[in-house]
Amino acid sequence: MSTSINLAVIPGDGIGQEVVAQGLKVLTAVLPQDVKLETRPYDLGAQRWHRTGETLPDAELEALKHHDAILLGAIGDPSVPSGVLERGLLLKLRFAFDHFINLRPSKLFPNTATPLAGRPEIDFVVVREGTEGPYTGNGGSLRTGTPAEVATEVSVNTAYGVERVVRDAYERANARPRKKLTLVHKNNVLVYAGHLWKNTFDKVGQEYPEVTTDYLHVDAATIFFVTQPERFDVIVTDNLFGDILTDLAAAVTGGIGLAASGNINPTGAFPSMFEPVHGSAPDIAGTGKADPTATILSVALLLRHLGYEAQAVRIEDAVSADLAERDGTFRSTDAIGDALAARVAG
Amino acid sequence: MSTSINLAVIPGDGIGQEVVAQGLKVLTAVLPQDVKLETRPYDLGAQRWHRTGETLPDAELEALKHHDAILLGAIGDPSVPSGVLERGLLLKLRFAFDHFINLRPSKLFPNTATPLAGRPEIDFVVVREGTEGPYTGNGGSLRTGTPAEVATEVSVNTAYGVERVVRDAYERANARPRKKLTLVHKNNVLVYAGHLWKNTFDKVGQEYPEVTTDYLHVDAATIFFVTQPERFDVIVTDNLFGDILTDLAAAVTGGIGLAASGNINPTGAFPSMFEPVHGSAPDIAGTGKADPTATILSVALLLRHLGYEAQAVRIEDAVSADLAERDGTFRSTDAIGDALAARVAG
Ligand SMILES: CC(C)[C@H](C(=O)O)[C@@H](O)C(=O)O
Ligand SMILES: CC(C)[C@H](C(=O)O)[C@@H](O)C(=O)O
Repeated sequence: MSTSINLAVIPGDGIGQEVVAQGLKVLTAVLPQDVKLETRPYDLGAQRWHRTGETLPDAELEALKHHDAILLGAIGDPSVPSGVLERGLLLKLRFAFDHFINLRPSKLFPNTATPLAGRPEIDFVVVREGTEGPYTGNGGSLRTGTPAEVATEVSVNTAYGVERVVRDAYERANARPRKKLTLVHKNNVLVYAGHLWKNTFDKVGQEYPEVTTDYLHVDAATIFFVTQPERFDVIVTDNLFGDILTDLAAAVTGGIGLAASGNINPTGAFPSMFEPVHGSAPDIAGTGKADPTATILSVALLLRHLGYEAQAVRIEDAVSADLAERDGTFRSTDAIGDALAARVAG
Repeated sequence: MSTSINLAVIPGDGIGQEVVAQGLKVLTAVLPQDVKLETRPYDLGAQRWHRTGETLPDAELEALKHHDAILLGAIGDPSVPSGVLERGLLLKLRFAFDHFINLRPSKLFPNTATPLAGRPEIDFVVVREGTEGPYTGNGGSLRTGTPAEVATEVSVNTAYGVERVVRDAYERANARPRKKLTLVHKNNVLVYAGHLWKNTFDKVGQEYPEVTTDYLHVDAATIFFVTQPERFDVIVTDNLFGDILTDLAAAVTGGIGLAASGNINPTGAFPSMFEPVHGSAPDIAGTGKADPTATILSVALLLRHLGYEAQAVRIEDAVSADLAERDGTFRSTDAIGDALAARVAG
């Protein structure tokens, strides 16, 4: 825990600007007086791309390295071809800074809407691998645009990459009261990657005799997400399955307005990056309808990562208390930010 | 519509035997007197593999070609290493017989349990590609079992393969009252395959001006499956996304006990294969607890494929009526089969 935080801020596109402003408001309010917070905004995203054609120039990538952490709003706009900003900016950051832990907690807070009947207890965390799998950009297209086109996508999985994320997940499971870890993959079809994941999972598990383990195919896992979400404690899975499962998890725990995430490099070699799971939602940008709670909860993850555990808990408790009192009447992005800032300061 | 049906039956593992018996019972009951039904059982699955080490010998693959259709129960057993039967038998059949349409209707029948609050109207069909994508078995493992292992899985997508399934999906959408088709992919990350899918979708769409189209990333699609499933009519998607989405679809429409599927080769070059979406459920095999309804609904798809539309509808109506009258008291596999056979015969 340092006595200063040098934070990079990438508001990005759409509602990204608005929610990040609230995240910073709450961050400022929760930090002890003697911690110096410096923030530097980075103008990256759709507007920058339209203006200059750049997604993430080397100079800015280099500059970003020197921050303690990154807070990101949302990336993506319908005016930019699909993939340009995702691959050229968001995924570029995750890969360049070796964010191999993509941490996504899912909790059904009291008094929040869930599409599930019976309001099951939901409190699990997905440890999504962040630097391998089908996200590597390996692949290509041959005879593009002709009737003879062949397009491939290569999922790359290494023992090095799988072992470090699996080990991190065991650590997290071991530190939780229920001590349960579920591996999700599709090892009956993706046999090469699947065997690597399963063997690594079993091998590393020998070091954690107190952790109960479980394996589910990804298709079966989606069933349990809606019929028995209470069965999950910690889930470890690959980059693509984690992407899919965490949106579903967000949906069953009250929506992506509440889903936080951290792209973490636990070695500290590069800054970790915290962002809401939701996208840029251009349809509601500027209307004050965006819920900044997911970003504010991402700030809690950021604080925990930097060693400010008490402040992280303060934010999480504030969100819990705030949600418990929400009565369904509309509150603007700003009003939610104000309410949470007031709570954490109090 | 032929006046005889020469059916191959692969009961397979676990509850496969039990549910297939009920499927055949209902098939026999619904067929007109003058249609000659011949069935030939194939002993394939876990027991055969344990006995002989074989999954699907060439002679049997050859023999299977000469049937009008195949009815399959379920494949897989924990005593067999993951992937052996899936790749060596189930997927081998889908690929050998070029089952490029994996058809999976999802309907929330009245009076059935759904985990979703508010019981939304659900009535959509997923057209899952069946012969490409990450299911091709392309890939491998280098330095297997060492700390330097690299395991890859290659998703292979061809213009040929994508266009034929997309066209089939447009045809199906065009024939339905709402005429709406949603493409699900992840084209912001899997850009090569994603562009091929999206471009093909847009191009073929020009031939179907009456069909309303929509695109969703797979992660977002899972959200809508639980928050707004009524928005879907026909969905077309790749092999892996289709696998995941159809289990989730089954879960929200009352469970995999009701989810039917057809592995269809619309050209008729090879027999199509019909199977419940659920697995072999070894934990309840032999207990009479398996619900044969998914298999019986798969028999309806089989009949429709062979031109027996009236008989297919008769089964679907019988299932609807039967579900409407189920009062939650336990009925055995056999009892459900008897009830449905009586209804379709009546
Ligand atoms: C925007 C996209 C590239 C990203 C992903 O697929 O990882 C998003 O869906 C997420 O989950 O953070
Ligand atoms: C058993 C498995 C290979 C299969 C698949 O992944 O296609 C199953 O999950 C299905 O959906 O039919």
